[in-house]
Amino acid sequence: MPAIALVSKTSPEQRAALHALAPGRLELIDCSADRESLAARGAAAEIVYGNVRAHERAALTNLKWIHATWTGVENLLHPELLERGILVTNTRGQVSVAMAEHALACILYAARDLDAFRRAKAERRWKAGSQPRLLEGSRALILGLGSIGAVLAGKLAALGVRVRGVNSDGRSAPPCDETCTLDAVREQLGDVDWLVCLLPATAQTRKALDEAFFRALKPGALVLNLSRGAVLDEAALLRQLDAGHLSAAILDVTDPEPPPPDSPLFAHPKVLLTGHESPRGQPDRTLAFELFVHNLRCYLAGEISGMQSRVDPAKGY
Amino acid sequence: MPAIALVSKTSPEQRAALHALAPGRLELIDCSADRESLAARGAAAEIVYGNVRAHERAALTNLKWIHATWTGVENLLHPELLERGILVTNTRGQVSVAMAEHALACILYAARDLDAFRRAKAERRWKAGSQPRLLEGSRALILGLGSIGAVLAGKLAALGVRVRGVNSDGRSAPPCDETCTLDAVREQLGDVDWLVCLLPATAQTRKALDEAFFRALKPGALVLNLSRGAVLDEAALLRQLDAGHLSAAILDVTDPEPPPPDSPLFAHPKVLLTGHESPRGQPDRTLAFELFVHNLRCYLAGEISGMQSRVDPAKGY
Repeated sequence: MPAIALVSKTSPEQRAALHALAPGRLELIDCSADRESLAARGAAAEIVYGNVRAHERAALTNLKWIHATWTGVENLLHPELLERGILVTNTRGQVSVAMAEHALACILYAARDLDAFRRAKAERRWKAGSQPRLLEGSRALILGLGSIGAVLAGKLAALGVRVRGVNSDGRSAPPCDETCTLDAVREQLGDVDWLVCLLPATAQTRKALDEAFFRALKPGALVLNLSRGAVLDEAALLRQLDAGHLSAAILDVTDPEPPPPDSPLFAHPKVLLTGHESPRGQPDRTLAFELFVHNLRCYLAGEISGMQSRVDPAKGY
Repeated sequence: MPAIALVSKTSPEQRAALHALAPGRLELIDCSADRESLAARGAAAEIVYGNVRAHERAALTNLKWIHATWTGVENLLHPELLERGILVTNTRGQVSVAMAEHALACILYAARDLDAFRRAKAERRWKAGSQPRLLEGSRALILGLGSIGAVLAGKLAALGVRVRGVNSDGRSAPPCDETCTLDAVREQLGDVDWLVCLLPATAQTRKALDEAFFRALKPGALVLNLSRGAVLDEAALLRQLDAGHLSAAILDVTDPEPPPPDSPLFAHPKVLLTGHESPRGQPDRTLAFELFVHNLRCYLAGEISGMQSRVDPAKGY
């Protein structure tokens, strides 16, 4: 009887739906209210719905499949799990609209120089001397055209922004007017006003946003990172902000996360941190569970090939 | 020989273009570098390109036509000038994109609760506990569907916002999904997340945004005013912010403007003031001059009916 450790929260209705999939044949181990109990209770679990942390890996001796209720699963692709042949599926697109709106909000916040008004008001000045830049006709570069990048590209293009996109092979991806690979884009950074990083954390993307990358951006560019802190060299970013080459950075993710209390990120006037809260505000978050149900049905039937959103360990996403 | 007082700035090329319209027949009185000289030098002026202030009206004894290089001309429609039959033309649409982007930036700033992140960072907190709301599927109300309102409606609709619009007669105005008059809209405020005021200041719109209007908006609504402070009852707005009914107000315009240094607007935590800087960032601002050239050609030929963008004193815009 396969046991499922429920680490992410489920409703009573959702748990009933799981039991109904295979009446009398499934054991559910609900760890969601006591997250720390997974290591102790999870030895029987063949399936985990939710996260597995580093210290829990060894205890999950019977683990065969993890379904992530989010997108970036670099921590689940640990060699220790991959060598055991653990299957990993993830959830893509569940919070794409919220994250794309967050990215757009951040771009417009910088473009319209909104913080200048807050500062002026604090000093009871009416005129802020803001220095806004128009979005219409500007150039955005989106690194990573998964579900979030695709939604964001559509929103930016609708606002008259020319969008260059980066994907794994440079294939065409409307409404981006240009697409290329991460390697090739390094030659096409000089006109970029708004850089949005949505790259997964993989061996290939580690610190891909390095000092040379930042220096090649258009002077005054905004750097926005919504994916993983590991893809960006924070020290290099701060140097290019200090040098006046970049106008601002807005980081939803950092490395490590959260930043240590004495991190210069907290003190830097040109940095805004958004606390990995970009996915917030999405009212319907049932996709993760719906995908899990579909995949569980396949899994129980032995039809592994029918499972959706399988992560490719070689690619890392 | 008609004399033109140039109050708004012109380039040498633009002044040459004016002379070329009627070689040897036009006198240009450039007051742009010394704005205060208009009253002293303007007695000969038949035409003013730019603003006429209250204390200058009496001195402009030969004035027949004012071309405003902006949109809202309630101050030029003063009875003293109208009784003299002064013609007023204005400039519409020149900064529509900048103002629409400003409005959108303000809406997203409130929707994504961005200031929560700045406050968290100031205290070196990573998590801000932001409470964002999704734009997609939300409801905006745009009061005034002139050039700015039309551009903004298009941008909001492209982002999945349902847009209700108010115009003078309630005629259909895609991409608004509903349109009505200002009177009629008072019955349709309960679902409004984002109120954007672009109404001209007229006798009809004076304090149209009153306490009853604010109370009828959806709880948590944002109030944004980009047109004229006179259309909004600031005391009533502050009361509804204090009562917790409205979440925030962003005012690009106030009454009086600027607010006095001891104005509660400067101190209120739920108010952002943007200093009438919403038109900034629009790189091409030649429309005002191009309209003036067209209208001057008509004026010199005695073809008043051919002049564009004539303001209707009865309507006030």
